[in-house]
Amino acid sequence: MTKLKMGMVGGGTGSFIGDVHRKAASIDGMVDLVCGAFSSGKEKSLASGKELGIPNERVYGSFEEMILEEAKLSEEERMDFVSIVTPNHMHFPPAKMALEQGFHVICDKPLSLTLEEAVELEKVVASTGKIFALTHNYTGYPMVKQAKAMIAKGDLGTIRKINAHYLQGWLSTSVEKTGQKQAAWRVDPKRSGIGGALGDIGTHAENLIEYITDIKIEALAADLTAFGEGRSLDDDGNILVRFENGAKGIISFSQIATGEENNLGVKIYGTKGSVEWYQENPNQLIVKWLDQPKQIYTPGGNGTYPESSDYVRIPAGHPEGYLEGFATIYRSFAKEVLAFKNGNSISDQLDFPTVADGVRGMKFIYAAVESSSNNAAWVTL
Amino acid sequence: MTKLKMGMVGGGTGSFIGDVHRKAASIDGMVDLVCGAFSSGKEKSLASGKELGIPNERVYGSFEEMILEEAKLSEEERMDFVSIVTPNHMHFPPAKMALEQGFHVICDKPLSLTLEEAVELEKVVASTGKIFALTHNYTGYPMVKQAKAMIAKGDLGTIRKINAHYLQGWLSTSVEKTGQKQAAWRVDPKRSGIGGALGDIGTHAENLIEYITDIKIEALAADLTAFGEGRSLDDDGNILVRFENGAKGIISFSQIATGEENNLGVKIYGTKGSVEWYQENPNQLIVKWLDQPKQIYTPGGNGTYPESSDYVRIPAGHPEGYLEGFATIYRSFAKEVLAFKNGNSISDQLDFPTVADGVRGMKFIYAAVESSSNNAAWVTL
Amino acid sequence: MTKLKMGMVGGGTGSFIGDVHRKAASIDGMVDLVCGAFSSGKEKSLASGKELGIPNERVYGSFEEMILEEAKLSEEERMDFVSIVTPNHMHFPPAKMALEQGFHVICDKPLSLTLEEAVELEKVVASTGKIFALTHNYTGYPMVKQAKAMIAKGDLGTIRKINAHYLQGWLSTSVEKTGQKQAAWRVDPKRSGIGGALGDIGTHAENLIEYITDIKIEALAADLTAFGEGRSLDDDGNILVRFENGAKGIISFSQIATGEENNLGVKIYGTKGSVEWYQENPNQLIVKWLDQPKQIYTPGGNGTYPESSDYVRIPAGHPEGYLEGFATIYRSFAKEVLAFKNGNSISDQLDFPTVADGVRGMKFIYAAVESSSNNAAWVTL
Amino acid sequence: MTKLKMGMVGGGTGSFIGDVHRKAASIDGMVDLVCGAFSSGKEKSLASGKELGIPNERVYGSFEEMILEEAKLSEEERMDFVSIVTPNHMHFPPAKMALEQGFHVICDKPLSLTLEEAVELEKVVASTGKIFALTHNYTGYPMVKQAKAMIAKGDLGTIRKINAHYLQGWLSTSVEKTGQKQAAWRVDPKRSGIGGALGDIGTHAENLIEYITDIKIEALAADLTAFGEGRSLDDDGNILVRFENGAKGIISFSQIATGEENNLGVKIYGTKGSVEWYQENPNQLIVKWLDQPKQIYTPGGNGTYPESSDYVRIPAGHPEGYLEGFATIYRSFAKEVLAFKNGNSISDQLDFPTVADGVRGMKFIYAAVESSSNNAAWVTL
Repeated sequence: MTKLKMGMVGGGTGSFIGDVHRKAASIDGMVDLVCGAFSSGKEKSLASGKELGIPNERVYGSFEEMILEEAKLSEEERMDFVSIVTPNHMHFPPAKMALEQGFHVICDKPLSLTLEEAVELEKVVASTGKIFALTHNYTGYPMVKQAKAMIAKGDLGTIRKINAHYLQGWLSTSVEKTGQKQAAWRVDPKRSGIGGALGDIGTHAENLIEYITDIKIEALAADLTAFGEGRSLDDDGNILVRFENGAKGIISFSQIATGEENNLGVKIYGTKGSVEWYQENPNQLIVKWLDQPKQIYTPGGNGTYPESSDYVRIPAGHPEGYLEGFATIYRSFAKEVLAFKNGNSISDQLDFPTVADGVRGMKFIYAAVESSSNNAAWVTL
Repeated sequence: MTKLKMGMVGGGTGSFIGDVHRKAASIDGMVDLVCGAFSSGKEKSLASGKELGIPNERVYGSFEEMILEEAKLSEEERMDFVSIVTPNHMHFPPAKMALEQGFHVICDKPLSLTLEEAVELEKVVASTGKIFALTHNYTGYPMVKQAKAMIAKGDLGTIRKINAHYLQGWLSTSVEKTGQKQAAWRVDPKRSGIGGALGDIGTHAENLIEYITDIKIEALAADLTAFGEGRSLDDDGNILVRFENGAKGIISFSQIATGEENNLGVKIYGTKGSVEWYQENPNQLIVKWLDQPKQIYTPGGNGTYPESSDYVRIPAGHPEGYLEGFATIYRSFAKEVLAFKNGNSISDQLDFPTVADGVRGMKFIYAAVESSSNNAAWVTL
Repeated sequence: MTKLKMGMVGGGTGSFIGDVHRKAASIDGMVDLVCGAFSSGKEKSLASGKELGIPNERVYGSFEEMILEEAKLSEEERMDFVSIVTPNHMHFPPAKMALEQGFHVICDKPLSLTLEEAVELEKVVASTGKIFALTHNYTGYPMVKQAKAMIAKGDLGTIRKINAHYLQGWLSTSVEKTGQKQAAWRVDPKRSGIGGALGDIGTHAENLIEYITDIKIEALAADLTAFGEGRSLDDDGNILVRFENGAKGIISFSQIATGEENNLGVKIYGTKGSVEWYQENPNQLIVKWLDQPKQIYTPGGNGTYPESSDYVRIPAGHPEGYLEGFATIYRSFAKEVLAFKNGNSISDQLDFPTVADGVRGMKFIYAAVESSSNNAAWVTL
Repeated sequence: MTKLKMGMVGGGTGSFIGDVHRKAASIDGMVDLVCGAFSSGKEKSLASGKELGIPNERVYGSFEEMILEEAKLSEEERMDFVSIVTPNHMHFPPAKMALEQGFHVICDKPLSLTLEEAVELEKVVASTGKIFALTHNYTGYPMVKQAKAMIAKGDLGTIRKINAHYLQGWLSTSVEKTGQKQAAWRVDPKRSGIGGALGDIGTHAENLIEYITDIKIEALAADLTAFGEGRSLDDDGNILVRFENGAKGIISFSQIATGEENNLGVKIYGTKGSVEWYQENPNQLIVKWLDQPKQIYTPGGNGTYPESSDYVRIPAGHPEGYLEGFATIYRSFAKEVLAFKNGNSISDQLDFPTVADGVRGMKFIYAAVESSSNNAAWVTL
């Protein structure tokens, strides 16, 4: 098996998500990082490149340079795909350019700064015929896939109630004023877009719900708040949700939920049973039944479907974590890219979040902001 | 210590809540059941009375009979207070009459069938000068009291986010059509009032929040649904909530949450820390801090305040349950009645839910129904 | 239903276990406390009696006085049974005398100060034909009964491994030197017998195992230690256990396990499945299977057997606790006493721990002490 | 940063632990697999090599061939270290040869087939001056390191009680007779040595205890059993343990604990507090105190020491798992190898399990087997 060659935009020294992408890409041994525009500015980029063991000639000062220069290399040598791990405002420009220059793209979420960009990008993906993945990484967890499979097979009956939350506390105080880089861009509309916590984590909750249930949000009524002093973007929100099939629910998210670390959770109730999953304890899926005792499923454990257990790397009882879930997105993307290189056409059912999911996410952000501006009036997606 | 004498309205054989009240009343040895109008109809009432060891002459065929006959007995002999454990539509009539005939009253929730009744009852309590308790029993749990004390002392800072849920699954199917008595009256507006699950369990969530935080709900936007075939009352609801102090939150409740037993929970976030409590595992309070590790408090355990530990009956590690929490309401009520009998005036700060809490609950029901009828428009309480 | 009349030995003001017995006896409304010798010394006993609402003429200065005086009363008036809640050295004398004077007895554990007493008491019970219950209260929990039923029905297959622990931390420091009464008698061989933590809590673990599995301990190898300065009795112990059916296991107990409250737990493995139960979270039974997902059973919840659900007082999801488990022993005892009063003969299968269980417990204590004295040599029971 | 070059012995297609080693080695981007003797026999080895993307000329038919051929390559080209992932009987031969030919070694546990081999290997490591790591991977978990740091700093006071368990159920039935390769060698003394579950998982428990507490086991009394039909090696064991500092405890392990997946856990009690950790939920450390509420620590979370948080790859709330803990061993080993290559001398305090730990493990196995053969007589290590 020849490894795929990855070029990275962003992810310089000290970046949180860049390092996550690199580790996720390397776990399954299918991807090598070969080049990067890790920071804006050649010097900083070179420093990062050195630390990562990338030869200087493959370290670039800008994504434009990287894409143009790499395109000049032989097919054997040049990168196969671009991984974009920059703040939101820098998703669209490199993604569009890379696709148009013939590279596949894997990009962090949310898809873009604006909905317009998202819609345009969807067209670019279609017109270029390249592969595009969005790292809604939580869909990579085996227990999330087990929940999805159980619902798809009808085990839970008709879904009627869906509650999700994504609660963090790291913006409880004004950390953005202390020079914390991660906080600084997230509270800045120029780099984050019109959603704050909404875009950063609310979209994960939205995506997780639609991924697991395969039911679309039809309308929402959102109450967004910026609790942090001087913040213009929301750091907290509560949303009533109505689904296309008549189900109802709630999404509550926050980055001022003091003491919470990364508490993403979802509870989904059907007519026959329900599932419950929490990201901080990802290796169990709680299943409650109308007339049977509660069950706890574990990755690769008794009773799991192949749709889930096929994604488990180690035997039951050996916990996998955030990086492995993330790596599953990379692995599925890499398999698709490999197949593409081998001349296969792109699958109808891509096994990772796509640009369409990204557009959904942007619509969710826009609908929630519009609703909240109108005192939580209902807005259809 | 002489025991107080209790008369009961409702709670005939097979009643769930009547038996709960009796057990709760007896745990601390302060109350004896001496008479009752357990069912409508003398014969059925007598049968229940016999099972409960009540002499036939103290078993009555109607609450009117009981109140009038008991009032004729000597002070030594007659009941001290009335416990009302009937369906909602039968709360107000016996409560009003008992108070007016000179008896103290402890009554199941919600307070009444209509808001009008609630408002009138509040006046009756005031004018008669008798003691009235409402059994929002979940406020009797020691860990709920610990949460309340921590917030009152400012340990958590300013409260900003409050999420509560009360999820049951027992109405997931149409059990009311199978002759299940508990279900039958709860889905019947004539006996339940305008709220279904809203009144039955939603009010518990509302009361729990206001009790713990001492912050009032200012406005709400409710999306109520009757999922069950042929039901006219809600069996599910999601509510956006705004609090008087600027906090925001969500209340989600359901009786069609398949597989849930009695999952009442609350998460409250302040600027310094947060608390989390679940009724099905009531002997732990999860406390998360801005800058300290997460803590788990237990009843009577290390670090608990007297405001909580004073209510614990047995050493830490010996779990107390639903009946004990319920019993705490009875005990506090009984202490107040005893003090009253000894000539003391009624406390300013009653240590149990009062008629005022009951009025709040009815306003909550009415506001939620009004909001939901207007497509989840905001309604102030 | 006429209530049974209970006389109490011990349990004066400030007693932990006396109050537990009284609350447990009263929950189900079958028992009234009518008399007592609550403390040694008339004056102290009278003070306790007053607090408990017992008329002075039924408060006695010694158990001998109580038994003799009550025996003189008419059958209608006199106590039906004696509840013994004193330290260990005061179990045998009142138990024997009460039985011989025609009273039934319910007694705290362990059965007696010495094995000799235990063996003699067993004979007294047999010869007097009275009913004797020992309050190994943990057997009253519904989930313990569910585990027992599952094993009895063969659901778990052949039992091969049994691990139990009972861990407390309240003797981690020398509290007995601070005037703490509960500690003082427990570290005193004259009042506790030859076992310290072994007798106080180790016997609970032993009894729980034999109750759930119906398999007897055949031999043990015990390593007991007195960690507390100046203690002559063990405050910690680890025991290898072999069972009559070839199963093996471990019992570990401690009262110097710092930070533990009342952590009694048991794990039992059969060829087809296993059960796991923890007293501090008593309302769930964890069941793991050879080839099915893990299950969580709850009291009265889906899938529970009548052998368990018949003992649940309130619907699933409404937690019961320590007092309710304890009350179940009292209720079963009371039913047997009532049947006896009605002329029925005593059941073959008593639904509560008996004097025979008490003798087992004493043999366990003696075997463990003997083993430990011989450097953990094997001793058969 | 130049990556280190790894050669692998064992780990052919279908191997569980080989794949774990490869993934663990690659997560942090410090190691490349460059060659291997993946199976015995060239053909099978080549097939595995192909799947792993290793050029045919670097795939060998035996470890001897690999070591000799690689030694002939230039320093730039040849492997830096050997990773040994074979069954126990094939640890010693390649380890010894690799060390003597100038390669560093990282080896799966237990160290060797016999204690004699272990002792000899320790000498070889010393005489060759090469770096040797043993993959007791559970010591790589951040919460294990937090426990170790808390004890080292005296936070828990003097350690007095230590209980550990390692419970699996995968050998509950005779899977070794079904052609299951993993089971087949583990029940075979020729490939496993004198310990069955004892060597496979018991040694993990032993190592974990000594790692966390830095207190040595002084003596043990073991009761080992082979429950599985026809097995000559233990598949279950219970061990009384005495520690050099006077602490006491228990180790219970099993591979016939039906329904258990990989339940390794440890509880350690000091005079001031205690810690509790479970491998299946590795991202929390439960800490109980003499006089403070129970705490839950999380990787990188509030209150963690640098000795722990330095090993966390992603922010608190993003769970890490088994592979990351394993990767930490590889990373620490790789850092040491890099330093060695840069001319530094080997650290006094190696940050991974060493050959000395391996010798401890073998002594533990031998002592337990000897004890069990003598009916659980005490044996000193």
